[in-house]
Amino acid sequence: MKVHIITIGDEILIGQIINTNVAWMGEQVTLHGGQVVGASTVGDTKEGIRRYVQLAMEEADVVLLSGGLGPTKDDITKNVLAEYFDSEMEFHEETYERLCKMFERFGRDPLPSHKEQCYMPVNAKVMTNNMGTAPGMWFEKEGKVVVSMPGVPYEMKYLMEHEVLPALLKQFTLLPSVYKTILTAGAGESVIADRIEPVTDAFPDYFKVAFLPNLGRVRVRIGAYGTNKTKLEKEVDEAVNAVVALIPELVFGYDRETQEGVLGDLLSAKGLRLSTAESCTGGYLAHRITSVSGSSGYYIGGVVAYANEVKSEKLGVSEQILQKYGAVSEETVVAMVNGALERYQTDLSIAISGIAGPTGGTEAKPVGTIWLALGNQNNVKTYKLQLTKDRLKNIEYIGNFSLNKLRHFVLENY
Amino acid sequence: MKVHIITIGDEILIGQIINTNVAWMGEQVTLHGGQVVGASTVGDTKEGIRRYVQLAMEEADVVLLSGGLGPTKDDITKNVLAEYFDSEMEFHEETYERLCKMFERFGRDPLPSHKEQCYMPVNAKVMTNNMGTAPGMWFEKEGKVVVSMPGVPYEMKYLMEHEVLPALLKQFTLLPSVYKTILTAGAGESVIADRIEPVTDAFPDYFKVAFLPNLGRVRVRIGAYGTNKTKLEKEVDEAVNAVVALIPELVFGYDRETQEGVLGDLLSAKGLRLSTAESCTGGYLAHRITSVSGSSGYYIGGVVAYANEVKSEKLGVSEQILQKYGAVSEETVVAMVNGALERYQTDLSIAISGIAGPTGGTEAKPVGTIWLALGNQNNVKTYKLQLTKDRLKNIEYIGNFSLNKLRHFVLENY
Repeated sequence: MKVHIITIGDEILIGQIINTNVAWMGEQVTLHGGQVVGASTVGDTKEGIRRYVQLAMEEADVVLLSGGLGPTKDDITKNVLAEYFDSEMEFHEETYERLCKMFERFGRDPLPSHKEQCYMPVNAKVMTNNMGTAPGMWFEKEGKVVVSMPGVPYEMKYLMEHEVLPALLKQFTLLPSVYKTILTAGAGESVIADRIEPVTDAFPDYFKVAFLPNLGRVRVRIGAYGTNKTKLEKEVDEAVNAVVALIPELVFGYDRETQEGVLGDLLSAKGLRLSTAESCTGGYLAHRITSVSGSSGYYIGGVVAYANEVKSEKLGVSEQILQKYGAVSEETVVAMVNGALERYQTDLSIAISGIAGPTGGTEAKPVGTIWLALGNQNNVKTYKLQLTKDRLKNIEYIGNFSLNKLRHFVLENY
Repeated sequence: MKVHIITIGDEILIGQIINTNVAWMGEQVTLHGGQVVGASTVGDTKEGIRRYVQLAMEEADVVLLSGGLGPTKDDITKNVLAEYFDSEMEFHEETYERLCKMFERFGRDPLPSHKEQCYMPVNAKVMTNNMGTAPGMWFEKEGKVVVSMPGVPYEMKYLMEHEVLPALLKQFTLLPSVYKTILTAGAGESVIADRIEPVTDAFPDYFKVAFLPNLGRVRVRIGAYGTNKTKLEKEVDEAVNAVVALIPELVFGYDRETQEGVLGDLLSAKGLRLSTAESCTGGYLAHRITSVSGSSGYYIGGVVAYANEVKSEKLGVSEQILQKYGAVSEETVVAMVNGALERYQTDLSIAISGIAGPTGGTEAKPVGTIWLALGNQNNVKTYKLQLTKDRLKNIEYIGNFSLNKLRHFVLENY
């Protein structure tokens, strides 16, 4: 079953909203064994919608549309489809009764524009939308299916789950597909591709590998299509294991796991308590750590030591160190991490100081120079990074890097 | 200038990532007076990319592509475009030099796959990508422009801002359009719409008003199309002033300003120093404040007081208060803010404690109960929020709320 997804609405094209419907529908179709061959977005114009539906039907068996079914004047999808499929309109009593009951519950009367929503194309199967006013529509032509749903995400999701996917699964025999994503940190896309090539080069034709890099992390997605889902799952699992065996130290998790979640699980399992001492990241690392529900079980807190006086007063970094080596130095981050370990009484601590940019660099310490120290009372490791001039990118990169090094430290020392 | 945007990558179609590039590119094109007539997404296949480029060129003057330019095998956009535009490939010395310098900074050598990235189609204008390895490409055919950019958002944005948009504006005559966005915090979309209706109802036909709500903030965008740009700019400015006059206390800035930037400017101008004491937001507010370049001029630092022991030891919140009222209480945040003012010796401080969720609530203090205190030595204000069960949304909402209340406090007290 080849699927094309069309989202309709000017607000998507002018960037007023981010289109989340495509990702959700795409994932559902893929998980059920369909193949999304393309997706498109078109504005609220008759010619545009006709053209995009026509093109989608040329390449797909099923066209899923969302958007343009509301009660306002800019919502024209229903009439365009009725015309496209040469269909008369008819008042749909069932829908009207549903709307009346719905408005009764709100203690309001339906507006004339809602009554208008009850006229439906006679050659469409009407799909009940229990989450809103506009019903879905299912058209068929020359063996192809065109489904129209509202653009409001929870209404679309309701129709997909309760009406569209069950009906599609009845009508089409689907080739199962299986995906697994390996999450890595610590090496670039090309290094990883190089290292896993001995395994990936031997993959059969129906396997596909993709690399998704993001600031020091790379997601490696391995997918396969076939007829036997159980066999595929076994094959993908074996393939994933073979890939991971070539890059074991880079892999921190799978699929929807996060670095902060994985680190949190590790700290919980080992009963370790963590504190942070951040200068240039200004609380970002603490934010990442505490974005995990349950982080209060292992994260105690920490200092945002932005000004030098905070580094000395709250973490005990000596004036001599700050004067002799500067705030961005190995000596300073080591003193910061020792201060945090002592004053926050935690098993582990991490300290970061650097020049996040875009200004503030010197010849000896250009913008993007970052020092990290992390460890426990017996063992402190330090790292120096030379990053870009982009402040926010640098901060995010340091967050990813820190979470990865903390994970390694726990694995190696506990 | 009619534009079609193509995003390339299986990861978008299978729902692994949400496509944010279309929204960003769509907004930029619209702001510069272009019209986005459609957008599409296609997987990493030769036939797919060819077909989509062909269809896009039929309806648009300019086709913007993002994705599929990485160094790995699944990235095929460059070769497909070279073939589509009948172009030989040639080693691009400039790109290679740039990559070598880039890797020198990292202390690494380029891999063979990076050298592969330096072969460029001879009939494409190469666009320097200072944010990553893959350059952009500008093709022209029969008066139409096809631009290919990497899919990594910050690389795409860099190329759009520094190369693509300036070049497009030179080549196409655009119907002037003028947009100005009023940034507000502290009231919802419908309240604002209501209050500004007396002005917006009288807008001429060629004016358009849009409301973009986001977690306690609403952007009100006022735009106008026409032939005389100077006249339009004057009209939009007057309209904006008339709107702002109806909601003066809600407006914190315009266009691309940020809450943290506006607050920073205020603190700088008044010579005030700020510290933070965060519990449930876990460093997020500090991160927002320090995401502004130059924030070290007014932000000293602060505590992430996640555990109760940190609240008492590092901020002096008494055991009695914690026992009697609990960590999530007005009494606790007032003690936290006084502790931060005293121990960080700043003019202003803010303290936050709450139950971010999704678990941890009680009958008396359900998930989403948040207390804030902010002020100086003479005057501390407190606020209670009742938010949702969504941890990350709550944290972001509190960040927005805090920055807005800090701005108000400075304006009212200094």
